[in-house]
Formats: sequence, structure tokens, C-alpha cells
Amino acid sequence: MRTRFAVFIAASVDGYIARPDGGLDWLKPFEGQEHGYTAFYESVDAVVIGRGTYDVVLTFPGWAYGKKRVIVCTRRPASPSHGEEITREEPRALAERLDREGVRRVYVDGGALIRSFLREGLVHEMTISVIPVILGAGIPLFADGLPERRLRLIDARTYASGLVQLRYTL
Amino acid sequence: MRTRFAVFIAASVDGYIARPDGGLDWLKPFEGQEHGYTAFYESVDAVVIGRGTYDVVLTFPGWAYGKKRVIVCTRRPASPSHGEEITREEPRALAERLDREGVRRVYVDGGALIRSFLREGLVHEMTISVIPVILGAGIPLFADGLPERRLRLIDARTYASGLVQLRYTL
Repeated sequence: MRTRFAVFIAASVDGYIARPDGGLDWLKPFEGQEHGYTAFYESVDAVVIGRGTYDVVLTFPGWAYGKKRVIVCTRRPASPSHGEEITREEPRALAERLDREGVRRVYVDGGALIRSFLREGLVHEMTISVIPVILGAGIPLFADGLPERRLRLIDARTYASGLVQLRYTL
Repeated sequence: MRTRFAVFIAASVDGYIARPDGGLDWLKPFEGQEHGYTAFYESVDAVVIGRGTYDVVLTFPGWAYGKKRVIVCTRRPASPSHGEEITREEPRALAERLDREGVRRVYVDGGALIRSFLREGLVHEMTISVIPVILGAGIPLFADGLPERRLRLIDARTYASGLVQLRYTL
């Protein structure tokens, strides 16, 4: 497979990517700086998100993904309204299709979806911004049951806010 | 309170400090380098460990703590044989006693014990060595239910092995 799947996500020191209700208010103090998201986002041809992320994004005032190709992985009915594609495909089938379509680089977002891609060995790059907060509860990035895997550290970048961005390839 | 409690621990990218059975074999490839442990260990007056850590340490061929003062927090019977003190005190009572005794700096070790000190706001410094491994299962460093807490990043150090050491004050 030539398609590369990349994760770019912020997590608290205790491993949460959102509050139990999906809330991201605790990230606000760290949003003043860029942290490389724009360059990352511009580097991908498509975004694949899970249903949880999709439902949160739909509550935002505008469509968060601009003209980027967006694929939503969900088994529940959905009413796409911004050109997003809805699919019931499993990660491997989706990855193979995107590969056949010539998609080179895909942004995978959402805790459960990231984990299902990790389970299939379909994540090639992880950028984790470690937020200097113990959150105490929330939606975890990782969970029990992932296959053991050695990562290769590409870069660790420290920001004035105390955020540390770890970049790995898998 | 003038006594400072410090954590110095290695955790996988997915937040485990040991395998489900306490195993640390996955840390072996990262032990060639020093990572500052000796300097940290020399900086503390005493070590406080939980029962899980104590039981693992007792399986080692020699006593791991040299002549350092060691306090074991456990409610179960124990037969100290290396001068270690056994206590049933809760973290706050123990911390206040150590403060009265003039102990300046204490190394707190063991997942459950670290979390009970965190719950009481009794951790002043955390050094977390992020090991570039997804372990998939094990004993977690953090767990649901800790109080929300902003940390201050003091330092982030990258090692050739891909280990990144994050140092925070709380």
C-alpha cells in the first residue's frame, strides 16, 4: 500500500483527547500558537473521521474541513451536506480503496477510528501534542487491546505554552 | 509543607508503566542510557512505594534501594528485611509526618500510590520518560478520577533511543 495514514492529535498528559462529553475547552489556552497543524492539514489529500468526531464537527458554526475530501466512517444513517462521503467500509477495505484511487496521504481523526486503524496496522505516522494538563476523565486516545508496536521518534518539539509535540512513524 | 514529592517513571506512549503482570522487559532496549535516574535518585532523602512495587522489588536478586530510607505503604502484613518501614498511613498523614521529620525530598513510586498522592495534590514534580512503544495492555500510570490539574513543563529531553523525557512541576 502506498497510501499513508497520519494522526495529528492533542492529548492530555493522562491520555485524553476530549472531555467525557467531547468538550475541548481545556485546549483553549494552547490554541494561540500554530503547532504545525496548518502545514499538516495542507499535506493531506483526504480526511477520514469517525462518527463521534463527525457529530461534534456538525455542531460547529461552519464546515471545518473546507474543500478537503472528507470520508465519514459510520454504520448509522447520515445526511451529508458538505460533500462528505459516508461509508460503512472497515478500515482495511477503505484503505485499499483509497490506495487504488491514488490517494497519497490521509488524516485519520477521532479516538475510536484511530484505534481501529492502529489495530489493523494502518497508521504510519502519529503526531501527538502532549498538553500539560491532567484532565482526570475523558475520551482516551489509546485503549487496552492494541497490538504491541515499536514506534520511531522523528521529532520532539517544545512550545512556550508547555505543549510538547511528539512525532513518530510506525 | 516543605517536603517535596517527586515521581520519576517510564511510560509507554499509551500510558502503561508495566505489563499486566508487572513485567518490564519492554524497557530493556532503553536501559543502555542513563536518562538521569542516578542524579534523581541521589537527590531524594527517602523512597515511598506501594505494595505492588514492593512485591516486584522483593523478587529481584538484591535489595534495589541500597541504604536509602524506604517506606512501604500497605495494609497487608509484611516482613521487612532490609530496614524498610511499613506503614498503613494515608498519603496526607504520611506526608505530614515526613515533613515534621524534616525530610526534604521524596521519590514516590508505583502506579496506584502515585495516583493516590496525585488525588491528594501531593505530587510536586513528575518526570515521565515516554517510551516509543505502544504496549496495548498493562498497568496504567494514570486512571479516571484524578483531579484536573495544570502542569508546568520544566524540560523535555530527547534521547537517541527515541525516549522523550518530560519534566513537569505541579
